[in-house]
Amino acid sequence: MAKIKAAILGFGTVGQGIYHIVNDKKEDLKKSLGLDIEISAILINNLAKERPATPGVLVTDDFEDIINIPGLQVVFEAIVNEDPAYGYLCRAIDKGCHVITANKVMFSKYSIPLHERAKSRGVFVGYEATTAGGVPVIKTLKNLLQVNSVKKIQGILNGTSNYILTQMRLEECPFDSALKEAQMLGYAEADPYNDVSGQDAFRKLMILSALAFGKQPNWNDVRVEGITEISLEDVKKAKLEGLRYRHVAEIVQDENGELFASVGPQLVGPDHPLYAIEGVNNAVSLDTNYIGTLTLVGPGAGMYPTASVMVEDYAEIIGKRAGFMITI
Amino acid sequence: MAKIKAAILGFGTVGQGIYHIVNDKKEDLKKSLGLDIEISAILINNLAKERPATPGVLVTDDFEDIINIPGLQVVFEAIVNEDPAYGYLCRAIDKGCHVITANKVMFSKYSIPLHERAKSRGVFVGYEATTAGGVPVIKTLKNLLQVNSVKKIQGILNGTSNYILTQMRLEECPFDSALKEAQMLGYAEADPYNDVSGQDAFRKLMILSALAFGKQPNWNDVRVEGITEISLEDVKKAKLEGLRYRHVAEIVQDENGELFASVGPQLVGPDHPLYAIEGVNNAVSLDTNYIGTLTLVGPGAGMYPTASVMVEDYAEIIGKRAGFMITI
Repeated sequence: MAKIKAAILGFGTVGQGIYHIVNDKKEDLKKSLGLDIEISAILINNLAKERPATPGVLVTDDFEDIINIPGLQVVFEAIVNEDPAYGYLCRAIDKGCHVITANKVMFSKYSIPLHERAKSRGVFVGYEATTAGGVPVIKTLKNLLQVNSVKKIQGILNGTSNYILTQMRLEECPFDSALKEAQMLGYAEADPYNDVSGQDAFRKLMILSALAFGKQPNWNDVRVEGITEISLEDVKKAKLEGLRYRHVAEIVQDENGELFASVGPQLVGPDHPLYAIEGVNNAVSLDTNYIGTLTLVGPGAGMYPTASVMVEDYAEIIGKRAGFMITI
Repeated sequence: MAKIKAAILGFGTVGQGIYHIVNDKKEDLKKSLGLDIEISAILINNLAKERPATPGVLVTDDFEDIINIPGLQVVFEAIVNEDPAYGYLCRAIDKGCHVITANKVMFSKYSIPLHERAKSRGVFVGYEATTAGGVPVIKTLKNLLQVNSVKKIQGILNGTSNYILTQMRLEECPFDSALKEAQMLGYAEADPYNDVSGQDAFRKLMILSALAFGKQPNWNDVRVEGITEISLEDVKKAKLEGLRYRHVAEIVQDENGELFASVGPQLVGPDHPLYAIEGVNNAVSLDTNYIGTLTLVGPGAGMYPTASVMVEDYAEIIGKRAGFMITI
């Protein structure tokens, strides 16, 4: 049976999740795709750091070792910032590899050149994991855009912020201790700036914009506000009034095709669709012309939700290459 | 440019929706799929009944006229009951046509033989529209099942029942007048038995069961209750307590692989994920091993939502046959 050689770039929470799922689901994937997958190599930052055992896998801190693996076909990328991730993915594509990324900071900026590069090489870019974690909003949008047009997108796109707002209300604890808890649970990065400043939700909104509208608004025109200004007193006051703070990212296209986006906290009541979205969950509402409003809700962060949609991207790409998709 | 000839069986709300969308999106579909689609024929029940104009299309009450169209490739089926729909689809498949159905009564019973028949002829069966209207739960389930296993499915699967329960609460009106309103708006059939008895939700749950678990429970073992026993007094009492009635269909698989399903009304509070699902909306929650709980919410009935997902099925099938899928 033909073997697909894959590499993982970055071995943090998400990278480890990919490794586990690929190994757990090896037999199922072989059965449904007719192809065996093997994680051939893992790129890490610091060889001295302790990490889970990965028997038989090349573990290296040198990208050259990875890109030179003969017959490498798939690169999973789970690094955090623009550089060097973008450069790595360009080189992987040039070598003829499919790439599957969870890197929203990089992808929100480089989605168009990456897609063009991939197209010219006849390979695919999977990016479900960049936006809303385990919620398959990218696949759903791609499908419905074949028939529908989208007028508005609204959602909770940062699980950490929603987790912190939920804990502040439920436990009546201040921002700092809720953030610490989120970090302990692996929802927030060691540097929480991107999450709590609204920048992470903004990047995801820009990825959705590129897909839904074929373009992004001018980044400088978008008001981006985080949750750091919301005090425990604010949260308690809202609670007494039966309201909840939600951190909402939204984008609308007007009749002239112009885009208007904003990211920031909103107070919502029990009848608002985002009222019941608690903890680390994300939610995305898509307003379309034929279907109406479609909302997806699910875990916006965490090892397995994010890694799972990356392996689904793999299954889709490999199924596509073989000229079929798995159907039941 | 190659032309795809399609026929529509049944020209009620959904059939008309398909006709409109296919004509409205003709150019877009041509661009994305590289193939032109033409509705060649429409099967109706009663030639004497008034209906929208369909210039250039063969309108007939004789299925033989349709099945004998040279080069027919796609059959959209939007008929209500098992017979003669199942027989028509079998003959269409035998002729080498892809079939796309919205018929849950038929499909809940015949999904397995239809799929086997289609497989042996190398064609596809699209059935997104059978379950939860415009909510793409079938595609989402198929995708996540490539990596995840499902433990439990819970949802509001009948838009009419949810519309009636919502109106009874908001307008404080009795069941009968809420039902009449639902019929006027085209949400409920002239004979509302299937909707309000829970049978419609039950059939959809069985379709989800076949996909998620590869089997269905014994139909006679499933307790199916509708909404007809809920009085205006019940609804008012719940409202005073801050609760809402929801008609919930659910199925769980235990550790031994056994399935337990039930369909009936439940009282839910503001923190329940189904509390905010109002009007004709449907919601489906999927409990999975890696992703966790994923919930989809959207219109469960209506001309355009249902017709839209059928045209999406068409785009997916035709994209698949050409060995590619549309990606951005």
